[in-house]
This record gives sequence, C-alpha cells and structure tokens, in this order.
Amino acid sequence: MSAASKSGFQSEKLIRFHHCDPAGIVFYPQYFVLFHELLEDWFNRGLGLDYAAFVSRERRGLPTAHIDCDFRVPSKIGDTVQMRLSVIRIGTSSITLDVSVHGDGAVRVTAKQVLVLISLEDGAVLPIPPALKKEFARFLRPAPADAGLSGKAAPAPTKRDK
Amino acid sequence: MSAASKSGFQSEKLIRFHHCDPAGIVFYPQYFVLFHELLEDWFNRGLGLDYAAFVSRERRGLPTAHIDCDFRVPSKIGDTVQMRLSVIRIGTSSITLDVSVHGDGAVRVTAKQVLVLISLEDGAVLPIPPALKKEFARFLRPAPADAGLSGKAAPAPTKRDK
Amino acid sequence: MSAASKSGFQSEKLIRFHHCDPAGIVFYPQYFVLFHELLEDWFNRGLGLDYAAFVSRERRGLPTAHIDCDFRVPSKIGDTVQMRLSVIRIGTSSITLDVSVHGDGAVRVTAKQVLVLISLEDGAVLPIPPALKKEFARFLRPAPADAGLSGKAAPAPTKRDK
Amino acid sequence: MSAASKSGFQSEKLIRFHHCDPAGIVFYPQYFVLFHELLEDWFNRGLGLDYAAFVSRERRGLPTAHIDCDFRVPSKIGDTVQMRLSVIRIGTSSITLDVSVHGDGAVRVTAKQVLVLISLEDGAVLPIPPALKKEFARFLRPAPADAGLSGKAAPAPTKRDK
Repeated sequence: MSAASKSGFQSEKLIRFHHCDPAGIVFYPQYFVLFHELLEDWFNRGLGLDYAAFVSRERRGLPTAHIDCDFRVPSKIGDTVQMRLSVIRIGTSSITLDVSVHGDGAVRVTAKQVLVLISLEDGAVLPIPPALKKEFARFLRPAPADAGLSGKAAPAPTKRDK
Repeated sequence: MSAASKSGFQSEKLIRFHHCDPAGIVFYPQYFVLFHELLEDWFNRGLGLDYAAFVSRERRGLPTAHIDCDFRVPSKIGDTVQMRLSVIRIGTSSITLDVSVHGDGAVRVTAKQVLVLISLEDGAVLPIPPALKKEFARFLRPAPADAGLSGKAAPAPTKRDK
Repeated sequence: MSAASKSGFQSEKLIRFHHCDPAGIVFYPQYFVLFHELLEDWFNRGLGLDYAAFVSRERRGLPTAHIDCDFRVPSKIGDTVQMRLSVIRIGTSSITLDVSVHGDGAVRVTAKQVLVLISLEDGAVLPIPPALKKEFARFLRPAPADAGLSGKAAPAPTKRDK
Repeated sequence: MSAASKSGFQSEKLIRFHHCDPAGIVFYPQYFVLFHELLEDWFNRGLGLDYAAFVSRERRGLPTAHIDCDFRVPSKIGDTVQMRLSVIRIGTSSITLDVSVHGDGAVRVTAKQVLVLISLEDGAVLPIPPALKKEFARFLRPAPADAGLSGKAAPAPTKRDK
C-alpha cells in the first residue's frame, strides 16, 4: 500500500462513491482530503512518526499555506490511484511538497503544496526542529522539471517563514 | 447575502462546525467546497442562471482544471466571511476566476481557478456559447496586480482549451 | 430563512452539488451534516444563543448519542428544502429532537435524535443548566403520533443521562 | 484488512484527521461515510462483487431507507477501528444490515440499516435478483439479542418493499 523510494513516498487509494459527484468523477475538494490522507500515511509509514500523536499529544499542526494544483485526467469510482509525495524544499518553518496522483500509467493530478509548522495551542508558527528536518530530508528531491510547475518561483522564505 | 458590483460577485458564508478540524479552524479542503457554493451562488444570483438546471437538465459541468490558492489568515467556527468572485479571463472553453475570502476587513484566502466547460454526457470539452460568454463578461475585470498571482502566466489556451 | 413557531424551528436549505452523489441525489451522510447546520441555526436564530461561543468559549458540545432516521423521498441538486426541529424530551443531560426535511409539500426525511451535553475539555457528561433547559423548553412539543417513530420507547434516562 | 466469518464481514479503518471535529472526536456524519466504505468493502472483498461496476455499469444503487444508530464510545484521530457488517433480513427489494464499530475491545457504534435496491436510471425500486439474494444470504444471521435493537420491530416489508 505504501513505500519509500527514490521517487518519494507512495500510497495507493481506492476512489470511492463518496469522493464522486453527480458527474460521476472525483469532486475536486475530495482530492485535497486524499492529499491529507497521503500526508498522514507519509508520517505513519514513510517518516515513521505517529501523525495522531503529532497532533493530539504534541499539539502541532501543518496547515496548508499555499497549494497550486493541476487536474489533468479525472478519476472515477472504483479507480485505484497511486498518490506520490516528495519534499522539494525545507524552510525554517515550512516544507514544500510535490504531490501527484497517478492512474493507469498517466499523471492525473499534480500539486505543489506549502505546509507551515504551527502550535495547535496558540496557532504560532514554529521553527522545524532539526530532528524533524532530518526526517523530512530523507524525502527531499529537486523540484521536477515539469512545464506546469518549474516556471513558478518557490514562495519567498521571508514571506512563508514569518 | 450576495451582490454584483464592480468588485465582482459576493456571497456571505457562516463558518460552521463541520468546516472545522481538530485544530478548531477551517480544514482547507472545506474552502474548496465553499468555493463551489460560491460558484453556484454566482450562477443563481449573479448570472441569473439556474445552476441546478445547468447540471441536471443541460447536462453541462465546469470542473476545475487548475487552482492556485494562498491561505493567509485562518477562519474559525462562527466567523462570517465574504467570498468574492470575478472573471479574469474568458477562453474558448475555459474561464479563469479570481476568488477571495475576506473576514474582519482582512484578506484570508486568495485563489485563481480555471474551470473548463464540459458535457456531463461524455466528458467532452465544449466551446463556451456566445450567450454564456456574454454573461460571464459582466463579471470580467483585469487580473489583480497581486505579487502572488501576477507573476504567473495564465494557462496556455492551447492547453486548457483543447 | 428561519422561524420559531408552534411547529418548532424551521430553516430553509438549498441542496447543493456537493451534497449529491453519482446517483444525482443527496448522499445520506450529507443529511446529517445538514442536521448539524439546523442545530446551529436553531441555537443562533431560534434559541438566541451563539453556537460558536457555546463551543469555542464555553467549551461545551452536544454530540449525538442516538439517531433514528427514515429517508422517504430523495432530494436532488437545486431543491429547496425546509428543515424543521422541535424538542420532544428534555432529560437530565440529554435532549431528544424531532427533525424533519420537507420539500414540495411532502415529508422527505424524519429523524429522532438524542443529543447529550458534554464538556469539550474532558468529554464528561454535564447536567443541562436550568436556564438552558428553559430555552430548550420553548421548542418542546409532544412526540409526533407518527407510526414510524411513536412505537419506539424513548431512550432510558438512566442510560442516556449517565 | 477484511474477512468473512460467522460474525459477518469485517473491515478495519484508521480514524483520520478529516473524520474529526473541533472536539477532536469523529464528527458523527463521518461514521455514515465510513459505513458506506464498509458497504463497498463488503461488495468488493466479502461478496466478491465489483461495487464500482454495480454502480457505474449495471447502474444500480442501494440507497439507505432507514438507519437507527447508537453512538456509545467516541473515536479519536489515530484510532484503528474494526467495522463489522452482517445481514439480518433479506426482503423483496431491501436488505437490513447490522453494522457495528469496535475499538480496543469495546463496541463503539451499533446501527441497523435498511438499504433498498434501485435503478440509477430512473430511481425505480427493483426486486433483488435471486443470484444477488444468494450472495447476501452468505452473510445472513439472526438479529442480535441486543437491548438497544431487539425491542424494535423490523420495518414492515410492505412499506419498505413498495
């Protein structure tokens, strides 16, 4: 169901009835719910960190500050898709992820997502601890030379890492 | 609750319990559900077109091909937010929307969203009929001179309008 | 949009695209999300209590302990439905609500729902304060003599009000 | 992840961030989404029928006509729960399921759910074909002698099977 590799972390998902809209295809907000499942899977099975403990006990969160997403090929009920995640930048308080959805050998969705580490107690932005940075770095790879993403500058650290 | 003006279409929304996550703030995929509510409100109250008939009777849809979104300030349960929509580009088969969420006088979320007109019968991309283009054009305005959006080229029509 | 009357509290809702499934009708879990919207509307506009403050500041919640629901007539995108709520029992720590959904003059959904007052700090069941009981009592009415509901005994207070 | 046994079909689920509300526990409508996942898993892995094909190719659906649900113990993020399903009645056009959620050895949620076979083309109620009845019957067992459920009569077939 999941694996860490040179191409990053992968988790397989079944497209279910509740993901789909009256057009019979995935309603796009549901992809973002699936991206969050992928993030949880990455913590639990890729990083070897307990995501629930991260949230409930450590009271830390990784809300999305920015997302840039291309929907190329629709998915429909019953499809099995491969969701992939890799890290393309580690900032002071943020990480930038490259997320993609694949099915039947084709790229269906690509996204670049910036997450910021915060305290769930007061919402304050936190610096990423060195030990966590080291874990994230195991999934680091250069930004893909993808026409849809490479032309856009990474978010300015001074803005993201405030 | 809604109005058409020079700044585009606006619809007011209450942030509800079900939009919020264990951190007590809006779970970001729920913003995209709210964006879809805004689109429906724009059809029904801004364009004066029946969105349900558009989908159910005319069997047409406007799936999202691209979305680029900045989350600046979180929203929490009980907040009343103003959601605004304007059209920044009308292509052969697509429209590009500028969507934003405002609360307490601050910009909380900004997004640029590309929607493509399709047939719900077979998923085929359709040219936007002239009468519909004319309606959309009533909400057309130049792309905002926003550092976060202006630096990115609009999607190539040849790609989007295939 | 809402009103208090002898028939209880009413709030009108538009059935939206995101409520509907690939069959083009409301996906039944979405009705329960709408029931929660109705509860919030009842607090805000019926009881005159700020639901968000109840949750966020007073840190109290009303989780569902029991729900019994009949789905009679489906709803589809674009339908405007009337959602009605009245109180049929006020216990030590719980209230039992009669909830229904109406459209085009027909009863579409009926439900009996038991909510329990808890502290969000530790999940402990709380006795309903007399002032809150008095507010709830304004919407109290006998259980409907409905074949689908009347034959079932109300939950035993000793069980629900533990 | 799943198994057929004398106690019915079982599927294990991870409680995720998006299932939980600001109180940090599963928002009850999400249990019904999970019940639907369980139904899909039962088709795919228990009955050996392709649920997606059932919906998309055969254009048949199993909407819920009635649900009666007790929420006993809350679930929180990171919990692994066992969801169990068995058939307690097979009618002309409907099946009644006994569904339950278990965690840490305790029963957390119990439900009795009536599903009706319909055509997705026109919404018409269909008789359950003998071959499908035979499949369902493999998971048939007597209704549990549970105080919370046994006191309630099964829905009258003449009403459900209209």
